Amino acid sequence: MVVATQSIQELCINAIRFLSIDGVEKAKSGHPGLPMGAAPMAFVLWDQFMKFNPKNPQWFNRDRFILSAGHGSMLQYSLLHLYGYDSVTIEDIKQFRQWKSKTPGHPENFVTAGIEVTTGPLGQGIANGVGLALAEAHLAAKFNKPDATIVDHYTYVILGDGCNMEGISGEAASLAGHWGLGKLIALYDDNHISIDGSTDIAFTEDVCKRYEAYGWHVQHVENGNTDLEAIASAIEAAKAVTDKPSLIKVTTTIGYGSPNKADTAGVHGAALGADEVALTRKELGWNYDPFVVPEEVYNHFHKAIERGASLQAEWEETFATYKTKYPAEATEFENQISGKLPENWADCLPSYTPEDKALASRKHSEICLNAIAPVLPQLVGGSADLTHSNLTEIHCSGDFQKGAYENRNIHFGVREHAMGAICNGIALHNSGLIPYGATFLVFTDYMRNSIRLSALSEAKVIWVMTHDSIALGEDGPTHQPVEHVMSLRMIPDLLVFRPADGNETSGAYKVAIEADKTPSLMALTRQGLPNLAGSSIDAVAKGGYVLSCGFAPEELDLILIGTGSEVGLCVEAAEKLKAEGLKVRVVSMPCVELFDQQDEAYKESVLPKSVKKRISVEAGVTYGWERFVGDEGVCIGINTFGASAPGGVVMEKFGFTVDNVVAQAKAILG
Amino acid sequence: MVVATQSIQELCINAIRFLSIDGVEKAKSGHPGLPMGAAPMAFVLWDQFMKFNPKNPQWFNRDRFILSAGHGSMLQYSLLHLYGYDSVTIEDIKQFRQWKSKTPGHPENFVTAGIEVTTGPLGQGIANGVGLALAEAHLAAKFNKPDATIVDHYTYVILGDGCNMEGISGEAASLAGHWGLGKLIALYDDNHISIDGSTDIAFTEDVCKRYEAYGWHVQHVENGNTDLEAIASAIEAAKAVTDKPSLIKVTTTIGYGSPNKADTAGVHGAALGADEVALTRKELGWNYDPFVVPEEVYNHFHKAIERGASLQAEWEETFATYKTKYPAEATEFENQISGKLPENWADCLPSYTPEDKALASRKHSEICLNAIAPVLPQLVGGSADLTHSNLTEIHCSGDFQKGAYENRNIHFGVREHAMGAICNGIALHNSGLIPYGATFLVFTDYMRNSIRLSALSEAKVIWVMTHDSIALGEDGPTHQPVEHVMSLRMIPDLLVFRPADGNETSGAYKVAIEADKTPSLMALTRQGLPNLAGSSIDAVAKGGYVLSCGFAPEELDLILIGTGSEVGLCVEAAEKLKAEGLKVRVVSMPCVELFDQQDEAYKESVLPKSVKKRISVEAGVTYGWERFVGDEGVCIGINTFGASAPGGVVMEKFGFTVDNVVAQAKAILG
Repeated sequence: MVVATQSIQELCINAIRFLSIDGVEKAKSGHPGLPMGAAPMAFVLWDQFMKFNPKNPQWFNRDRFILSAGHGSMLQYSLLHLYGYDSVTIEDIKQFRQWKSKTPGHPENFVTAGIEVTTGPLGQGIANGVGLALAEAHLAAKFNKPDATIVDHYTYVILGDGCNMEGISGEAASLAGHWGLGKLIALYDDNHISIDGSTDIAFTEDVCKRYEAYGWHVQHVENGNTDLEAIASAIEAAKAVTDKPSLIKVTTTIGYGSPNKADTAGVHGAALGADEVALTRKELGWNYDPFVVPEEVYNHFHKAIERGASLQAEWEETFATYKTKYPAEATEFENQISGKLPENWADCLPSYTPEDKALASRKHSEICLNAIAPVLPQLVGGSADLTHSNLTEIHCSGDFQKGAYENRNIHFGVREHAMGAICNGIALHNSGLIPYGATFLVFTDYMRNSIRLSALSEAKVIWVMTHDSIALGEDGPTHQPVEHVMSLRMIPDLLVFRPADGNETSGAYKVAIEADKTPSLMALTRQGLPNLAGSSIDAVAKGGYVLSCGFAPEELDLILIGTGSEVGLCVEAAEKLKAEGLKVRVVSMPCVELFDQQDEAYKESVLPKSVKKRISVEAGVTYGWERFVGDEGVCIGINTFGASAPGGVVMEKFGFTVDNVVAQAKAILG
Repeated sequence: MVVATQSIQELCINAIRFLSIDGVEKAKSGHPGLPMGAAPMAFVLWDQFMKFNPKNPQWFNRDRFILSAGHGSMLQYSLLHLYGYDSVTIEDIKQFRQWKSKTPGHPENFVTAGIEVTTGPLGQGIANGVGLALAEAHLAAKFNKPDATIVDHYTYVILGDGCNMEGISGEAASLAGHWGLGKLIALYDDNHISIDGSTDIAFTEDVCKRYEAYGWHVQHVENGNTDLEAIASAIEAAKAVTDKPSLIKVTTTIGYGSPNKADTAGVHGAALGADEVALTRKELGWNYDPFVVPEEVYNHFHKAIERGASLQAEWEETFATYKTKYPAEATEFENQISGKLPENWADCLPSYTPEDKALASRKHSEICLNAIAPVLPQLVGGSADLTHSNLTEIHCSGDFQKGAYENRNIHFGVREHAMGAICNGIALHNSGLIPYGATFLVFTDYMRNSIRLSALSEAKVIWVMTHDSIALGEDGPTHQPVEHVMSLRMIPDLLVFRPADGNETSGAYKVAIEADKTPSLMALTRQGLPNLAGSSIDAVAKGGYVLSCGFAPEELDLILIGTGSEVGLCVEAAEKLKAEGLKVRVVSMPCVELFDQQDEAYKESVLPKSVKKRISVEAGVTYGWERFVGDEGVCIGINTFGASAPGGVVMEKFGFTVDNVVAQAKAILG
């Protein structure tokens, strides 16, 4: 069926579809099905509702858009190109999924301007959206005035069946409902097809009813393929409900327009093939060559450029008025969204001497957070229902709740994965907010993909992970991390800190806060730790340093390398060995990644190559420590699961004792 | 208030409560609140409904009980003790949370007979329960006859607010509803308190409505503290609904009976303290010393011993009849639940020569699964919506679905975490079933805690993880594992295989299937791999072996160590180097953990200490390879995130080329 004449809306929607089809076809790789089916809802949303400025993708007050079903990335690239974003030219579209292109397989915020968050792992995007909406609500509550609204935008998400099957989306939706985030509007592309085929085979729940149970406002657009008015009305209605997030289930046909592949899993994740592309062109009446967009279509889309410029100008005017009336707040606002830290902010961090009381590093973390919080109002965060175990409460603020969005303590409930993605969303709101999320270290296993995505997508989040070893004791092996510290070190671009005492905890926070785009993870003890002679706030930035020595490198018999709670053990063992005439250096290694980044000269000054006898001590798996102890070294650690018993007993039984370190030292020294 | 006279039911419930209180009090550690509040529902369930034999905790046809809220472990230990299980004596109760006790902090199936699965990490237990119920449904469909029912039990779960907040429980519940697992009955201990306080602060959704949306039968017992009849009626009603799983929300008071701490977070995770224990004794009219249980109470509980014996006897009689009528099926049943493998089963595994076609190792995995499936009918499993990417379909069977429980292909939907816990549940049904679960390797991040728990709880599961490196190409860094293989190796008691070709894939399956209690994880390629000269099925059991050499150890210039897709690269590089007169050995290391378990002589035979020039090649992070390459070695890998482009391009750009390996070799050989 050839469509004789098409409205400009139809032409625009088909332009989105065919750029997507052609991009995938040229790459011979990608997911055409979603863009073909979701093009109408995306067009209505961007054309009639979204507030954005193509020539300034980072304009603060823009509406945020997330494609949670990130495999449909060509939809987003098509939109960015057609609306006149400089980040995606027609050449970029032709380079879809090619080396160094601006149009990678899944949307990557750190590659393509106009992409807010990195999606692809399903369910992350909708949970990021909750974070973006939270950030907006918080800043609005904090900065807006009755006569001047400077923070006011929506967060729109398109998510698919896959996102809705993932548990993380349920966790995040439950929180969004609890918080009543009315400016979060999610369009659920209900195309009833996932990779394995019809959703009938594994996904027959009533999604709308489930979202109602979470406290969302829920609507259903039955014909998302052609009923543009119904889509527009639903978005309108969603905006009118201000105290609940909205889900709009939009029933569509995956691969709409493809005569032989529409409504099948075949169109989900593979190019249509030349023949079917030709048939689809015919079916949808699209008589243009690949990558050709008719002038009138560009003209329509490009109206958004002027619209965006006036929206921004209007906002700037509002802000100018605000600045006149509320100069102090305006300055705070500008400072915050610039991401600049106050000068000398780090002076607030506490320092310690060995005379200071032994405290758990989780307690030192609490002291840091509460020292920082008054100085850095952009610090917000909380725990997955372990506030008083993780010690993450900001005492100078109340709880972030519906009606109290200005507060900074976030209760995530027992929802680690959503916490992770929400923190990423807060960071990627790019308004200077520094989020932190906390749970027991072992439960990083529940949120590992979000931690990974914080590193990949340059979301500066602080992950506060307490109860960092078998020394937590009685809760037993289900709660005792063994492999976690080492396995988290494997994630690129994530700094993992395991501070030995108060100074090192302050040092870890110093690096974490001053980081530009890098997330940090704190592994903190449950048990008390002495404050060590020689420990240093500043040395933490080098990752590893000589904590105690007193000998020239060439004199050294042995180097003991410890992290966290085991540095104190190394110090005690070194004392004993020194008493027996041995020349021992203790190296504290709070951050392996930072140490690896130092130049060779510095590394040699800490771990001289000539000293071959080395022992690492860490209450975790030893695999990985060979990098630092070398061929003649020994690694003291635990390579099995832990056990339930009081912490001191567990540590002793697994060999974390001064006597064992001393014995192993004597053994390798022969 | 002193209770003058108590019914035997009340006495029994108080006995559960006070054993729990006293156990926690003596340990000065633990969670008394849940046992105190959930004792009534647990008592009604075990006393009136549960089918079990205390003197044979492994009796096949027992009802399964899971305490998904595992922190309330003292509830389960009290039940096991009171009902006469030999595994938990009163002395064991007194040793709660002590070194080597039978009563660790959280329930551990591998420590305490009568515990079905290991819980503590929230939400895992209810998802394990779905696996147990699936196993029952499958075996029932497979073995039961119209005139002889030999598989027929319920799976009961007690879960809490924390479990219901976790996404994994939602994923699992959605599947249970989809499958219509009518013999799964979950009691939701609705005590509206979690660690941070009232659930009002983070959990205000309508849980019942949500489960209805999943297709569950839902009831509410409003007074779970004292209305035993209502609890019993609800369980009765739940049993009557045979085509839907049931949720019974039982509203209770956490710490019921404690005058000052009931209904507060204070009673959740800490001992009550001597004074409050005394007050609670008074309040509940319990005039017995710690750990003292009146004779009449024991007598009542111990009726279960005789009851259990007759239940088992009755079942054995049924089975005897079955055996007479259906001898072949009876033999198959006995063989299967014994866990014994048919002799020579491994003969079905394919072997290859270099002349055989290059195939992806995921394809070899598919061939293995389909070679094994007819020989081992106990093999069941599937993928999280990536069946035709992971290549995990068993072709000789259909899909496990409502009404087709006899089938072996399970569609988990996009629910990796629930898949993990469900597979664990299937394995821990202890009926010989060997489950497998599949997704992309990068998405082990979504299910890492379940993988860890498979190792900890000795659940023999095969994790089939495909698309195992940046070589997957266009999908880009969100989908490209980099740190995963190495970080999974860190998990104790998990075997991680990265086979190089067809033979090694067969070898990996051989070890995985023959393992007694150890889970295995397969890291498999998307891309084709040549079948290598010298590769071996049997050598895989040693973890690493000499694939090609031709030189005596003392002659060797260099050892190249590769895994998976990079072994072929090593072979090619070795050829080039040999052509230049260098003496090079290629070691394939499909399983680092198994290699580490070999004796020193074997390890020396593969990696002679005298050969210091070594290069590891693996398309993943290099951290960890120092163990094998030593001080003078070099690690070739990728220590950043990957990038979106065709797989061959990505591999080349990141240095996985013969030329680079050759260049690095020359560099270290000086």
